[in-house]
Formats: sequence, structure tokens, C-alpha cells
Amino acid sequence: MRGALVVVDMLEDSLGEGRSSAITPHGRAIVPCVNELGHWARGRGWPVVFACDSFLPGDFIFRGKLKPCSLRGTPGAEPYAGLERRPDDLVVPKRRFSAFFKTDLDQTLRSWQVDTAIVCGISTPVCVLATALDAVSHDLRAVIVADATAAASPEAHAAVLGLYRDTPLFPLLRVMTARELREEAT
Amino acid sequence: MRGALVVVDMLEDSLGEGRSSAITPHGRAIVPCVNELGHWARGRGWPVVFACDSFLPGDFIFRGKLKPCSLRGTPGAEPYAGLERRPDDLVVPKRRFSAFFKTDLDQTLRSWQVDTAIVCGISTPVCVLATALDAVSHDLRAVIVADATAAASPEAHAAVLGLYRDTPLFPLLRVMTARELREEAT
Amino acid sequence: MRGALVVVDMLEDSLGEGRSSAITPHGRAIVPCVNELGHWARGRGWPVVFACDSFLPGDFIFRGKLKPCSLRGTPGAEPYAGLERRPDDLVVPKRRFSAFFKTDLDQTLRSWQVDTAIVCGISTPVCVLATALDAVSHDLRAVIVADATAAASPEAHAAVLGLYRDTPLFPLLRVMTARELREEAT
Amino acid sequence: MRGALVVVDMLEDSLGEGRSSAITPHGRAIVPCVNELGHWARGRGWPVVFACDSFLPGDFIFRGKLKPCSLRGTPGAEPYAGLERRPDDLVVPKRRFSAFFKTDLDQTLRSWQVDTAIVCGISTPVCVLATALDAVSHDLRAVIVADATAAASPEAHAAVLGLYRDTPLFPLLRVMTARELREEAT
Repeated sequence: MRGALVVVDMLEDSLGEGRSSAITPHGRAIVPCVNELGHWARGRGWPVVFACDSFLPGDFIFRGKLKPCSLRGTPGAEPYAGLERRPDDLVVPKRRFSAFFKTDLDQTLRSWQVDTAIVCGISTPVCVLATALDAVSHDLRAVIVADATAAASPEAHAAVLGLYRDTPLFPLLRVMTARELREEAT
Repeated sequence: MRGALVVVDMLEDSLGEGRSSAITPHGRAIVPCVNELGHWARGRGWPVVFACDSFLPGDFIFRGKLKPCSLRGTPGAEPYAGLERRPDDLVVPKRRFSAFFKTDLDQTLRSWQVDTAIVCGISTPVCVLATALDAVSHDLRAVIVADATAAASPEAHAAVLGLYRDTPLFPLLRVMTARELREEAT
Repeated sequence: MRGALVVVDMLEDSLGEGRSSAITPHGRAIVPCVNELGHWARGRGWPVVFACDSFLPGDFIFRGKLKPCSLRGTPGAEPYAGLERRPDDLVVPKRRFSAFFKTDLDQTLRSWQVDTAIVCGISTPVCVLATALDAVSHDLRAVIVADATAAASPEAHAAVLGLYRDTPLFPLLRVMTARELREEAT
Repeated sequence: MRGALVVVDMLEDSLGEGRSSAITPHGRAIVPCVNELGHWARGRGWPVVFACDSFLPGDFIFRGKLKPCSLRGTPGAEPYAGLERRPDDLVVPKRRFSAFFKTDLDQTLRSWQVDTAIVCGISTPVCVLATALDAVSHDLRAVIVADATAAASPEAHAAVLGLYRDTPLFPLLRVMTARELREEAT
């Protein structure tokens, strides 16, 4: 296995000081686990990718309940300050849910000989899941890290993990804890 | 609203005579509802699209639990014979889960002035959901039709519907019954 | 090198009986060379792909000078009858110029361990060139086969070949005769 | 017509102080015309987009003659300092030739109600042309601005302009001078 850690939407606008949406506490709670995974991945020479919502004002995505946020070029669209970052990490601005949607991430991971996308971040039912499914669509194995992902409600988070633990895509798509992942990859 | 009915993976290999996978009975059970929706959509001048898995032998997707199926050019990859079809319907072979992944469906729907993808078919947690999320990614509204979609287990089906009934994407992404949809669109 | 022969837009609507557009005679003239290349490629176990315009009525592409042609599902959008085909050949309908635009051809060629797209067909300045450039964009080497490609005028054909013989992309993108290609690949 | 000015690859690494590749003088020579077009476009409320090569070290593109350049995150991959820029301009990093390849530019231009991509920059036979062809592929009209584009040799530049002045894509794809464009759009 050669993995890449893909940290999805752990952004200032969701997790930063003063923010208080439903997902904020749950997203902050996984920061230590995400940082540990990043440390572990870099130690193995595996890339760390921050995939970050990068919307435009007036974007279609804001025609529903979602209030304008994560606007391209604003500080709110930057990775959360509590995340450990290194100069070699890659930041991939994304227009929609999946880190692969209209980005070159598939090509980047292939050129780095990555065969497994290790997906963490928020939110489990939308951007995390869309990224994991798209990873498999791009012929990469995908791991959703159970304790390094979060949703606006713990029930929704648990429901998603339950749904994708055992599908016809197993083991191309897997749900694992950070510990299970580290033990297997050793 | 100008919709297109997108019928996902209602294929001979899953639903045809002699097939007996876990999803077969649940997929067959929604055929009448899918056919009614197709009749209703065509009557309004809305397009009907059959998005069909079209894998290649040796495809990455078969390196997990999934046995080779829905192979491009084989009868098993054709829309299920029990579905009503019209010559104007569009068949979109797809390589992965989403009907939009590496296809021109987004462009086709735009050129037809469609603003809403009405997604039915199987399975709810994978190809149906991936198609609905990608529709929103492509600036289309999406409706997952609760009683015209199915999964290998009724519990998984219900769990997915529950998860996406109320997300920050509402009402760009909605879960509705066929009846609710028809009443609203009238 | 492991190549795939990509035959671009050698369609009934351009080359078939009774057709007489400017490109018709030039396209027909390369049929023997394309057939020889196909024979040679298959003999080496290399795939042969027919990438075929597959437009929809009312398509944007017809808002200019181009008259409706190569319509999806019509006999005119089929590979020209004078081409030798085998059951294992792949037909890739395409919505626009490049054989890679909104198709899964990149993924197919990768899954077949192809590293070089050998591009022939018509027309040199548009669909052939767009396919060759997109091949390189997808991390494949590309060869434009000088005597197996054609344009509406021999001058335009020669001008394109001249332009791309020596670019910063060399030798990722090359212009070669069929003979040069066969000699090198032996 | 509602246009967007797409400035292709006018980067520090090609045009900046101390650079001296074959294209450097020709690229610098069009800077005034590009700046004038930008001024004119902004004055009409049309967006200005800088589409910029953004390669990774070890990228496939460097396995040919091309020496590493325009590396993501380096000053050399920034728009040339001689270009007039405004805070509202959009910078689109791109992985390959076309400004649309694995980017969300198509979606951005649509969300801005743009129907015409006005393409300028370098080099005419590769990134400019690929961008213009892809614009038409995405159902946008495209204008290659003759006197605001350049190649490593004036002959190659002129040859490309000659080839695409009159194709079946006319007038979806056009070659015009900046003056012709401004007169028509008035």
C-alpha cells in the first residue's frame, strides 16, 4: 500500500475561532486524530493533501440552505489553523464536494504512485463520502477513517460509517479506525 | 422546474430472469414506480435517461468483492427488459457509480435546458447517491425518489434516505416520493 | 512502448458512399494505411479504438457552419464500412473533438497498461490534434501518424504536421510516418 | 456576446526578468495588447482570468525536452509582473495545456453567464489553441486574438492563425484582432 492522506474541508470557516455551526465541535474534536495521521503519513513518505472548498460568491451551491462560506481567496477557505502543516503538503481547492471533482488530484496521486486515498475530515455524509467514492471511481483504494471524520450530528456520522462498512466495493472502499489503519500499514 | 428522469443501473445483470443477488427483489419491486415516472416524465416532454454500468473485463472495480458483471457490450449491461423504453430515451453507459463520471451527461442535460435530475434506480447508497451528489456538483437540482430507488437491504435504503432528507444542500438535493414530486411539478 | 491505435472520426457520415465533403477523398485515401496500422497493432496485442463523433440534434456544435452530422445512434455516426474491425476493438462515442473529452478513454488505456496513443484519422487540425494533445495531458505519449491522418486540404494537413514536429513537448508528442513507427516499435 | 478574457500562460517563468527562452521576446511584445484587452474587458464588466501552468516536480510533462518550469507554488508560476491585474481577476492554476483541463473554469464561466472565451497569451500552437478548442467543446464561443497571442516563432504563430481562421467550427471559433473584437462587441 502507498497511501495519501486527504484531509477534507477542515477549514477556518467551519472550525476557526468564533465559528459555531452544528459541525464545529465535532470537527474540532477530530483535529488531534487528523494531526496524528498526518504525522504518521509524512513519516512514511506519504503525501498529505488538504482538499478545501473554494466556492465563488453567487455559486449555485448557495441557492439552498447553505449560507455563503469558504469563498475562494478568503481566510475562511484556508485549512484550519489548528492543523499541522508542512511545506510539502498539497492544498487542492475544490469547487464541490469531492476532492476529485474538476481538480487534477487523480493525476497528482497517480504521478506520486499512490494507490490508496486515506480520507479524513468533514462532513462524513457529503464531502468525505463523495471523495472516497470518487477515489474508487479513479481506480484508487479508499479508506474512510472512522475516528478522523465527523458530521454535524454523531448519529449521521455513525449511520454513514455503518452503511459503507460492508458494500460490494469492499475492500476497495473500507471504513477503518486510525489505529487499524496504522497497524495494517506497518 | 424542467426535469430529466435518470434511471440508474436498472440492468439485466441485476434484475433479469434468473438473477438472484441481494438487490434483485428490491430492484424489481420498484420497476412499476420507475415505469410510471417515465410515463409521466415523457408526457411532460422531459427526457428519460438510462445510466448503465458499463465495465470492462479486468476493471479495477472487480478487484474487491464484486464479481464481473455489467460488462460493456454484453446483454447484461442493457436496461432491464421490464422497463418501458421509448426511442427518444437516452442510454448513457457509465464507467463508475455516478452517471456523470467521465460522461457527457452534464452537457446533455444543460443543452436540453434541464435544471433538475430526478434520480431513481439502484443502489441507493452508491450509484443513486453518487449520481444525485454529482448532479448538484454540476449545478443541477437533484431529487432522489424514495419509492423508486432500492438497495440490497431495506434498512440501508431507509438509512440513506434518512441521511439526505435534511442536509445543508436542501433543497438543491431532496428526497421525495414519486407522488410528492408529481404533485409539486403539476 | 505499449501503444493503442486511436482511429479518430473515420465515420460513415464523412467517408461513406455518396458523401462528398471536402475531406471525403482525403479521408478515404488513408483508409489502407489505417487498416494496415490496425492489423499491425492487433498483431502485437495492442488495442484498437474507434473514437467517433456522437453529437445530439440541436448540439451547440451545429450553431456555426457545421451541418448536423454524426448524430448519436444513426448509421452515419458508425465507423466507416471500409475500415477493418475486430470484435475486441473498442468504440468510444465522443461529444466533441478530443477522444478524451468527457469519455473514460484515459482510464481504459491506463487499465490496459497503454503508454502511447497512436493517433490516426481525421481531421488533422481539429479532432486528431485535440486527441493527441489531450493524450499528453493525460500522461500518455502521443504519436500523430503523418500518412494515416488527413484534413480537408492537403495544405492544412501539412501545416499541422509541420507545426507539431518540433515543440517543447517532443518526444512526448511526435509526428511519425506509419513506417517509422513500425520500425521503432519492432 | 458576454465574454471573458482568458490570459494563457503569461508567466514569470516565460516572460520575467532574466528569462530568455525562444518565446520570451514574442510573449513580452504582446503584453501591451493583453493589458489593453484586460482594461477594455473590465470596463464592460467582463471577467479576466489568468490561466497559469502549475506543474509538479517530476511531472510527466518534463519527461521530454521541456525543462522543469512553472512549478506550483513558485514565483515563476505567477502571472508576469508586467500584466495589469485587479483584485477581482481570477487566477486558474492548470495542470496541462488547456485552461479547462481538470479545472472548474467551464463551470465558473457558465455561472458568470459568459458565452465567449476571448483567448490570448502563449503559446499559440499549444496552450492557446487547446484552450480555444476546449472552450468550444464546453459550448462556449471562442476567439483567438491574433495580436494578443504569440509563439516561439512568428512563423508558427502565423501558421496556427491561418489554420483556424476558416474551419467547420467558424464562427464558434474565430481568429480576430483585438481591434476587430472591440469593434464588433461595441
